[in-house]
Amino acid sequence: MRITQKVKKILANYESDNPGTKANLARILMEGKLGGTGKMVILPVDQGFEHGPARSFAANPPAYDPHYLFQLGLDAGCNAYAAPLGALEAGADTYAGALPLILKMNSANSLHPKDEEPTQAITASVDDALRIGANAIGYTLYPGSAYFYDMLEELRELIREAKSVGLPAVVWSYPRGGDISKDGETAMDVDAYAAHMACLAGAHIVKVKLPTDHLEQDAAKKVYEGENVPIGTMSERVAHIVQACFKGRRLVVFSGGGKKGDEGIFDDARAIRDGGGNGSIIGRNSFQRDKDDAVKLLGTIMDIYKDKS
Amino acid sequence: MRITQKVKKILANYESDNPGTKANLARILMEGKLGGTGKMVILPVDQGFEHGPARSFAANPPAYDPHYLFQLGLDAGCNAYAAPLGALEAGADTYAGALPLILKMNSANSLHPKDEEPTQAITASVDDALRIGANAIGYTLYPGSAYFYDMLEELRELIREAKSVGLPAVVWSYPRGGDISKDGETAMDVDAYAAHMACLAGAHIVKVKLPTDHLEQDAAKKVYEGENVPIGTMSERVAHIVQACFKGRRLVVFSGGGKKGDEGIFDDARAIRDGGGNGSIIGRNSFQRDKDDAVKLLGTIMDIYKDKS
Amino acid sequence: MRITQKVKKILANYESDNPGTKANLARILMEGKLGGTGKMVILPVDQGFEHGPARSFAANPPAYDPHYLFQLGLDAGCNAYAAPLGALEAGADTYAGALPLILKMNSANSLHPKDEEPTQAITASVDDALRIGANAIGYTLYPGSAYFYDMLEELRELIREAKSVGLPAVVWSYPRGGDISKDGETAMDVDAYAAHMACLAGAHIVKVKLPTDHLEQDAAKKVYEGENVPIGTMSERVAHIVQACFKGRRLVVFSGGGKKGDEGIFDDARAIRDGGGNGSIIGRNSFQRDKDDAVKLLGTIMDIYKDKS
Amino acid sequence: MRITQKVKKILANYESDNPGTKANLARILMEGKLGGTGKMVILPVDQGFEHGPARSFAANPPAYDPHYLFQLGLDAGCNAYAAPLGALEAGADTYAGALPLILKMNSANSLHPKDEEPTQAITASVDDALRIGANAIGYTLYPGSAYFYDMLEELRELIREAKSVGLPAVVWSYPRGGDISKDGETAMDVDAYAAHMACLAGAHIVKVKLPTDHLEQDAAKKVYEGENVPIGTMSERVAHIVQACFKGRRLVVFSGGGKKGDEGIFDDARAIRDGGGNGSIIGRNSFQRDKDDAVKLLGTIMDIYKDKS
Amino acid sequence: MRITQKVKKILANYESDNPGTKANLARILMEGKLGGTGKMVILPVDQGFEHGPARSFAANPPAYDPHYLFQLGLDAGCNAYAAPLGALEAGADTYAGALPLILKMNSANSLHPKDEEPTQAITASVDDALRIGANAIGYTLYPGSAYFYDMLEELRELIREAKSVGLPAVVWSYPRGGDISKDGETAMDVDAYAAHMACLAGAHIVKVKLPTDHLEQDAAKKVYEGENVPIGTMSERVAHIVQACFKGRRLVVFSGGGKKGDEGIFDDARAIRDGGGNGSIIGRNSFQRDKDDAVKLLGTIMDIYKDKS
Repeated sequence: MRITQKVKKILANYESDNPGTKANLARILMEGKLGGTGKMVILPVDQGFEHGPARSFAANPPAYDPHYLFQLGLDAGCNAYAAPLGALEAGADTYAGALPLILKMNSANSLHPKDEEPTQAITASVDDALRIGANAIGYTLYPGSAYFYDMLEELRELIREAKSVGLPAVVWSYPRGGDISKDGETAMDVDAYAAHMACLAGAHIVKVKLPTDHLEQDAAKKVYEGENVPIGTMSERVAHIVQACFKGRRLVVFSGGGKKGDEGIFDDARAIRDGGGNGSIIGRNSFQRDKDDAVKLLGTIMDIYKDKS
Repeated sequence: MRITQKVKKILANYESDNPGTKANLARILMEGKLGGTGKMVILPVDQGFEHGPARSFAANPPAYDPHYLFQLGLDAGCNAYAAPLGALEAGADTYAGALPLILKMNSANSLHPKDEEPTQAITASVDDALRIGANAIGYTLYPGSAYFYDMLEELRELIREAKSVGLPAVVWSYPRGGDISKDGETAMDVDAYAAHMACLAGAHIVKVKLPTDHLEQDAAKKVYEGENVPIGTMSERVAHIVQACFKGRRLVVFSGGGKKGDEGIFDDARAIRDGGGNGSIIGRNSFQRDKDDAVKLLGTIMDIYKDKS
Repeated sequence: MRITQKVKKILANYESDNPGTKANLARILMEGKLGGTGKMVILPVDQGFEHGPARSFAANPPAYDPHYLFQLGLDAGCNAYAAPLGALEAGADTYAGALPLILKMNSANSLHPKDEEPTQAITASVDDALRIGANAIGYTLYPGSAYFYDMLEELRELIREAKSVGLPAVVWSYPRGGDISKDGETAMDVDAYAAHMACLAGAHIVKVKLPTDHLEQDAAKKVYEGENVPIGTMSERVAHIVQACFKGRRLVVFSGGGKKGDEGIFDDARAIRDGGGNGSIIGRNSFQRDKDDAVKLLGTIMDIYKDKS
Repeated sequence: MRITQKVKKILANYESDNPGTKANLARILMEGKLGGTGKMVILPVDQGFEHGPARSFAANPPAYDPHYLFQLGLDAGCNAYAAPLGALEAGADTYAGALPLILKMNSANSLHPKDEEPTQAITASVDDALRIGANAIGYTLYPGSAYFYDMLEELRELIREAKSVGLPAVVWSYPRGGDISKDGETAMDVDAYAAHMACLAGAHIVKVKLPTDHLEQDAAKKVYEGENVPIGTMSERVAHIVQACFKGRRLVVFSGGGKKGDEGIFDDARAIRDGGGNGSIIGRNSFQRDKDDAVKLLGTIMDIYKDKS
Repeated sequence: MRITQKVKKILANYESDNPGTKANLARILMEGKLGGTGKMVILPVDQGFEHGPARSFAANPPAYDPHYLFQLGLDAGCNAYAAPLGALEAGADTYAGALPLILKMNSANSLHPKDEEPTQAITASVDDALRIGANAIGYTLYPGSAYFYDMLEELRELIREAKSVGLPAVVWSYPRGGDISKDGETAMDVDAYAAHMACLAGAHIVKVKLPTDHLEQDAAKKVYEGENVPIGTMSERVAHIVQACFKGRRLVVFSGGGKKGDEGIFDDARAIRDGGGNGSIIGRNSFQRDKDDAVKLLGTIMDIYKDKS
């Protein structure tokens, strides 16, 4: 496989990583319809843990079968498929080498008591990732939670071990809990903070939600307004997140959120592209519809990213 | 032993497992009167921990002797006998190789303070399982408990170690504690969720209680009703649980619950069979009666399973 | 030493244990005036931790010297002497090989805050037991305490390690804390439950208090009454405890409790003997009196046990 | 590199350290414009974690790029650059060997719930420090916090490991939390206590805030007044901190605090110099302004230190 | 060095210890003006942690320098100098082999929140003790604290490791916290209990405060009064502590407490001597005065001990 200049330039930003880790990052960046462009569309399916099986798959019952999800990622030409251990084990041999896999290392669920501060359970190990042939580990952080420091230490330990065996880390950084308001979870200042801390913790790819123009913290609001940081449009906000990710030295992708109209999804992708983001993670909007529809939708998103790459 | 096509097909679903783990799974599936059919009846005796000795054995005093329980599993032609370490150690040499053993790794008891969130103590290790010749480990999860994440991490660690030495994992997934109501413990949505998480955590055999048609969580209720998921009959509910277990890629068995009339037990078995479930775990309904009666009852249940297998 | 048939039969019940562990069990069972009878009288001295030095030894000041206690066990012909590490270290060299030692692994004290749930501190290791030449480890469990699951896990870890180097485990199982009433601590149902759980956890010798005919838990009361379990006399209650200890497959000894009249102690011994129990642990009633008196008292108890063995 | 007499004398105070640790201490002391004088100016950038990206870098956007900060430290002739792992990894290869690096091992953030007692998360390991070529580890202590004992144990473990591989430790000792008032955080008695405990814990370089003449603890106040400890001027207070650092046997530097007028910064430097302190750590006052300005400011501070060294 | 008969007899009481541990105990017992007498005066300086630098050293500023304290111990002819790691590291090379060192392994401080139950942080390891050439480890226990069981487990782990490399353990046993009243901290019953538990935990040298005739616990009071334990004079109380220390099989020394008149100190020493105690630990009364005065004071105390030894 000839690595493109665009991807080589991205890899060069990971200057402290060993060749094994860069090689796996390259495999993800060179895969699928966006292979070599420096943009990515990743298929994530951890809703089984997050919301349970019926809320995840009843709308499109073939998706109850773990093989369906591997096949969807492959057919759509995604850069990688991310899921918890049990779901990957159920197809990793059949699809060995077929598409890059991101093993989700921790998981939460909605049966958990509501008055507990948010956290997740570790449900996989780096050895599991190697054993099933995964190309990266995935981990969710909850900045703002009373458990955040514990999660951060857990993440560091996993990244340290993963990097030593050539596996990069994808970090979902989702503020919640503690003093953070519902609006604050996607506030510009909080979202940029969450992305920045993931970079400081050593994430290779950061995943955050698309931010709103709300500013949550007073001390931050003063700075955004005083320094006239432009955050009026979605693409400006994406650009600020990119800035917070070491001024573009770290890859950052954005989640599509809940099910919504296709045009909304395409608008998001255009804003991510125009703001300099590196792509999307599209879960429920892809696997909760008929596969042909899903492949078509993901194809349109990929075309948007290719448009200016 | 010639492995049947039915069992070979089941083993193929465990595509990420090593041959040692599949071999022990095969030993359980090929044992007893249901050997080779893909159906199972397992004898579990952890009531000594759960309810104490008198509530477990006073109704049938010979059962105070651990040897009695091995002999019952053997005489009845069960696929396996599951119990805590002390009880297995007391007969493992006498019955070495006689029938597959599932070593129960954690245990709860009813002397525990009622206002504590439910959890269990680890009372055995994978090394213990190997030392006494067990063919699988067993573990109880409590989805919904404030301790669930800790239990999940503990389970993952045990499964990882067990699989590395060729032992599959049987996971009892029993929702309780936290925000879950008494009815919610066997609600359709919660039970399917519990079964699904056990699969995501890497269980080889899942054990849940038979579900009712109650729906506990509002967000789930909306989906079950909106997508018209059929849950009106017990066999439909069993079929939904099978769907939640990776669309049948993971074995799932159901508990008989407290002592009840024999006809009720047979009806349950027929519903499990018709819904595509893989069998029953029958404890109190077997060891709390005279052995001849118990062997006869279990034989009738096995006949029901054989009927269409 | 020629092992008696009685002891050989007892050893055979420990069918999963290695020869080293059985050998140490045999040393205890073959020692002293009851050697070979299958009955035991053990001298336990952990009151220094439990009640402090003056409450333990001021009544008989020579007992402040650790050597005195070894000598007492030896002179009285006890099967073993049980004590915390510091006390054993102070005489283990002088009395090396003279009589079997049980190293008490955890300890509580009465300076501890009263409103804390009961637990104990680990004050010795299996390596310590080997280093000082002990023949068994001792451990106290508190069924009912909020810390019980932690204690149970700790015990399992110690037993696992001890057995691997040939040391059996003596488990003091003393219900207290949590929802258990003062009367419940020695209630028939609770005491049998405590003994049974020690067996399930892998104890080689169980030690419980002599039970009363009180029944603490409603669910248990229903069974004892419904099944007409005989618990009216002390020897019936002892017999029920023996039943709860795997129907006699595990050794069980009973504590003498606080200082009381000698006749009361002899009556207890007769009830233990007649109920099929394996002996007594006699602490304060022996070391808090003049040594000659103590030797005489213990001799009378041993005669009671020998009477029908 | 010929080590100056001044630096040799300082190194001799670290009499229990191995040559590797002294060599790295020497590299820091011999670097930059103050190299060899025994004085230091260190560039610390952990505000990304502490305050988030915008509050740290919006005032001078080039600083969003981690390379900018390495270059600033280099251009200004600082003795070392201190930052969290992610930020150092992003430039450690490009700037390999160019200037001494202090890897900050723990980090706090302002999204954390306000009502939690202050602590930090471990975000790097000693192996990380070696891997990226750092010359020292950095760690923040919070004396007074309910978590202080945990932090102290964590620090000791890190120092033990760091020293064994030749890395000295820089300890930020910042009283806060628990019973300490806002004024108490920089009170003379508390600040000296914080510096002293860092030395007792084995810090090679201590970093505290410049103290005020407030006395927080009554028992201390009595001694300061009774013994007439001179603390009226800033240089007297610095001299007392030096005394608390083993009478000058340990290096101590002072933080500049929040953004303030340049003359205030220079006054601080003169007081540190006159009191016998070993230098400054200047963060926000340097990287939140144009680089040329920052280099000029840091140069003036260095001239002040050189003036009498 | 020819070990005296007196010291040989003491060493024989440590019958379970290896020669390395006895050799270091001998080094302490054979050192200084009391060398060979079986009596000891130890210089302890952990007030820097306990009370902060000014409250410790402002009264005698040369003591801010760690070397001063080594020199004081040496000049006064003490048996050993005890201090935290940082303070010992600052002089261990200069004074290598000059006098026995006791490395204090845990430390508390008075900035800690007042409403926390008392405990200490581990601030050194057994490897540190070996690395700096210490001859023993020191550890503080707080009997009565809610953290006591944790401290006891920590102590056991440290003693186990220390003894395995030939280092004896000096245990400061200071009751406080939980249900213990202020008067109870030095009550006869509580102090004897604290000394006894240190012995049970394996301490080689116990250090307690001189007891008052107050009796704290009702159950103990009944015994002291019922058995007429003589505790009316200080020497009687010391004798009772010696009795609680395995009837003299373990060394026990007493602290001088806060600064007080010299005659009071001498009276204490006489009572310790007459009661059969093994000596004093003298901190604030020695290093908070001019060195010549301190050497003279310590000399007088040593003369008192020599008087009848």
